[in-house]
Amino acid sequence: MASTEVNPGPRDRSVGLRGRRGARVEAFSDGVFAIAITLLILEIKVPREGPLAAGLLRLWPSYLAFFTSFANIGVMWLNHHRLFGLIRRSDDGLVGLNLLLLLGVTFVPFPTAVLAEHLLGHEQRTAGLLYAGTFLVLAIVFNLLWRYVVGAKLCAEHADVPSITRQYALGPVFYAATAAAAWFSATACLVASGLLAVYFALPPRLWRSA
Amino acid sequence: MASTEVNPGPRDRSVGLRGRRGARVEAFSDGVFAIAITLLILEIKVPREGPLAAGLLRLWPSYLAFFTSFANIGVMWLNHHRLFGLIRRSDDGLVGLNLLLLLGVTFVPFPTAVLAEHLLGHEQRTAGLLYAGTFLVLAIVFNLLWRYVVGAKLCAEHADVPSITRQYALGPVFYAATAAAAWFSATACLVASGLLAVYFALPPRLWRSA
Amino acid sequence: MASTEVNPGPRDRSVGLRGRRGARVEAFSDGVFAIAITLLILEIKVPREGPLAAGLLRLWPSYLAFFTSFANIGVMWLNHHRLFGLIRRSDDGLVGLNLLLLLGVTFVPFPTAVLAEHLLGHEQRTAGLLYAGTFLVLAIVFNLLWRYVVGAKLCAEHADVPSITRQYALGPVFYAATAAAAWFSATACLVASGLLAVYFALPPRLWRSA
Amino acid sequence: MASTEVNPGPRDRSVGLRGRRGARVEAFSDGVFAIAITLLILEIKVPREGPLAAGLLRLWPSYLAFFTSFANIGVMWLNHHRLFGLIRRSDDGLVGLNLLLLLGVTFVPFPTAVLAEHLLGHEQRTAGLLYAGTFLVLAIVFNLLWRYVVGAKLCAEHADVPSITRQYALGPVFYAATAAAAWFSATACLVASGLLAVYFALPPRLWRSA
Repeated sequence: MASTEVNPGPRDRSVGLRGRRGARVEAFSDGVFAIAITLLILEIKVPREGPLAAGLLRLWPSYLAFFTSFANIGVMWLNHHRLFGLIRRSDDGLVGLNLLLLLGVTFVPFPTAVLAEHLLGHEQRTAGLLYAGTFLVLAIVFNLLWRYVVGAKLCAEHADVPSITRQYALGPVFYAATAAAAWFSATACLVASGLLAVYFALPPRLWRSA
Repeated sequence: MASTEVNPGPRDRSVGLRGRRGARVEAFSDGVFAIAITLLILEIKVPREGPLAAGLLRLWPSYLAFFTSFANIGVMWLNHHRLFGLIRRSDDGLVGLNLLLLLGVTFVPFPTAVLAEHLLGHEQRTAGLLYAGTFLVLAIVFNLLWRYVVGAKLCAEHADVPSITRQYALGPVFYAATAAAAWFSATACLVASGLLAVYFALPPRLWRSA
Repeated sequence: MASTEVNPGPRDRSVGLRGRRGARVEAFSDGVFAIAITLLILEIKVPREGPLAAGLLRLWPSYLAFFTSFANIGVMWLNHHRLFGLIRRSDDGLVGLNLLLLLGVTFVPFPTAVLAEHLLGHEQRTAGLLYAGTFLVLAIVFNLLWRYVVGAKLCAEHADVPSITRQYALGPVFYAATAAAAWFSATACLVASGLLAVYFALPPRLWRSA
Repeated sequence: MASTEVNPGPRDRSVGLRGRRGARVEAFSDGVFAIAITLLILEIKVPREGPLAAGLLRLWPSYLAFFTSFANIGVMWLNHHRLFGLIRRSDDGLVGLNLLLLLGVTFVPFPTAVLAEHLLGHEQRTAGLLYAGTFLVLAIVFNLLWRYVVGAKLCAEHADVPSITRQYALGPVFYAATAAAAWFSATACLVASGLLAVYFALPPRLWRSA
C-alpha cells in the first residue's frame, strides 16, 4: 500500500497519533512520567543531626538511587515517546496497556526509597530484588504494549517491526540480569540498572550496529 | 441537520472541544488526573523495622489500595477523555462542573490512605464506607456533568445520548454496591471497586452487547 | 484597524496567544495550577488514634480548608484562562508577572495547612490573616497583570477593558474583607473565601448584570 | 540559504521544534519544571509549638529559600523556553542533554530544604555551598546544551549565536560567585542567587545594552 506513496523523507516519517484522543493519551502519559520522576527527590531527607557535610555524604545511597531511578524513568519516557511516534492510531487496548505501564512508572518511587534505605544493610538483597523486579515487570509490559501495537496493526508502515521487537525483547533479559546482580550486592544491581538506562537511551540504529 | 452532511467516517467523528479554551480545560484536567494518580504512591511508607521481606509483605493492604485507586482514577480519566471527545463546545457551567469532578479526583488519595491503614482493623467498615462513598459521589458528579452536557446541547450530534445516559446511570448503582460490600468487609469493597474499574474501562459498545 | 476586518463572530473572538511561546506559558501555568491544587490533599493526615469515625469528623477544619483553597485556586485558574484568552501576544513583562502570580499560587498549600491546624485554636486570628493575606496579595498581582496587559497593548481589541478593570479591582477589596472577617473568626474568613470563589467563578457578563 | 526566503517578520522568527517529537520534549520539560517549582512549598512545615505569629516569623529562612529557588527555577524555565524557541529540530543528543538538565532541576528542592534548615546555624557554609553548587552545575549543563545545539546545527538561522554563547558563558561565572559568597554567609549566597535570577530573567537584548 505504501509503495505508491511519495516517500515523505526521513523527517516526516514520524507519524504519531492523530486527533485529540491520541494527543490526550500522550499528554496524560507525559504528566505521569514527569511527576513520577520529580517525586523521587522527596525521598531524600535533610540530615538534621551531626556535622552537615558528613550527613550529606552519608546520603550517597539516596543520591545513587535517585540518579538511577531518574535515568530509568527518563529512558522509559524516551522509549514511550519513540514507540508512540510509530503508532498510527490508538484503540482501547492500547490505552489500557498504556495505563498498566503508567501504573508501573508511578510505583518506581517506592522501591527506590526502599533500596536507598537498605542499600548497605543486611537486607540489601530483598531491597535490590524489589527494585530490579519492578523494572523487570516494566520491561515486560513494554514488550506486551509493543506486541499489541503490532498485532492490532496500530503501527506505522515504515516501522522496522522485527528489529524493534528484537530490541524490546532484550529489555526483560537485561533487567533479569540486574536482579541476579542484586543477589550478590544491591549496589551492583543499582549500578547495572544505571548503565542499562544509558544503553536504552541510545537510539535503536546504534543498537543495530552494536 | 446532520443528514445533509457528508458522513465523515468513524475516525473523524471524534469532535472534541474546539479552540484554546477547550484545550486548556482538557490540559488542566489531564494534569490533575496525572498528579492525583501519581501522588498515591506517597502513601506507601518504607518499612524500617524487622525483616524487610516480611515488612514488604505486610504492606499488601497499601499495595491493594494503591492499585485499586490507580485503576479507578485511570478509568475516570479514560471516561473523562471519552466524554470530552463527544463535547462540541465548552461553557462556564461545564467548566464549573468539571472543577467539581476534579475536586473529587484530588480527594481520592486521602480515603485511599485511610483504607490502607485500616483495611484489616476493627475500623474497616468506616474506612471502607469513606472509600466507597468518595467514588459514589464521583460517579454522581459524572452523571451531573453528562446531563448538563446533554441539557445545554454541548454534545456532538453523532453521540448516542440515550445509550450513554443509561451506562452512566449504572455508575452510582455499582459504587453504592461497593459501599454495601464495605459493610461486611473493607477488602471485599476494595476488590469490588477494582473489578468495577476494569468494567468501566471496557468501551461502551461492549457494555451494549453485554 | 479592526474596522475593515470581517467580524469573526462570537466564538472566534477568543484570540489567545499565538505561537509556541504563548502556548508554553499557558502549559506551564496549567501545570503549576494543577499541581498546587492537587498537593492540597497531602495536608490532610490519616487519623491513627481513637475511633476512626470520630477522628475523620474531627478533621472537618482540614476538609473545609481543602475545599476552600481548591475553590480559590480553581477560580484563579479559570480567570487566568479567561485573561489569557483575551491576550493577543506575550512579552517578557507578562511572563515575569505571570511567574509572580504562579509564585503566589504555589504558596497557597502552606497557609491552607496553617489554617487547618489552627482553625479552632486561640491562634486562629493569625492563621486567618495569613490565609486571607495570601489571597489578597494574589488578587493584587492579578490586577497588576491585567493593568500591564492593557498598558502594553497586549490585549485583544474586542476586550471590554473598562468593565474587566472594574471587576478585577473588586478582588482586593473583597479579599481584604475576608481578612477583616479573620479578625473575628477564622471559620468566618474561610467561609467568606469559599463564597468569594463561587462569586468569581461566575462569568463577567453575570457580574455586569448584578 | 535563507537569503532567498521571504523575511517572515519578527513575530514568525520564533521557529520552535516541529512535529510531535519536539512538542513532547517541551511538554515533558514544562511538566518537570512546573512540578519541581511547586514541590518547593512542601519543605515549609506548619509551626506547631509556641505562639503562631512568632513561629511563622521564625520560618523566614524557609520563605527566603522558597522564593529564591522558585525564582531560579522559574528563570531556568524561561531560558529553556527561549532556548527551545531557537531550536529548529531535535535529535537524541539534545533529548539526552535535556534530561540531564531536568535531573538537575528536580534535584533543587533538596539543597533548598538543606539551606532553609541550616541558613543561620554553624553549618551554613556547607549548606550554602551545596545550594550554590547545584545551580553552578545547572548553569554548566545549560552551556553544554547550547554548545551542543550550535555544534549539531539544530539552531534556527536567525539566532544570534555568538551573543547568546557569551551570555550563557556568564552563568557559571556568576553562580561561582554565589558559591564564593556562601563561604562567608549562606544568607548572602541566597540573596545573590535571588538577584541573579532577576538578572537572568531580563531578555538578552537588555543584556547586550548593559
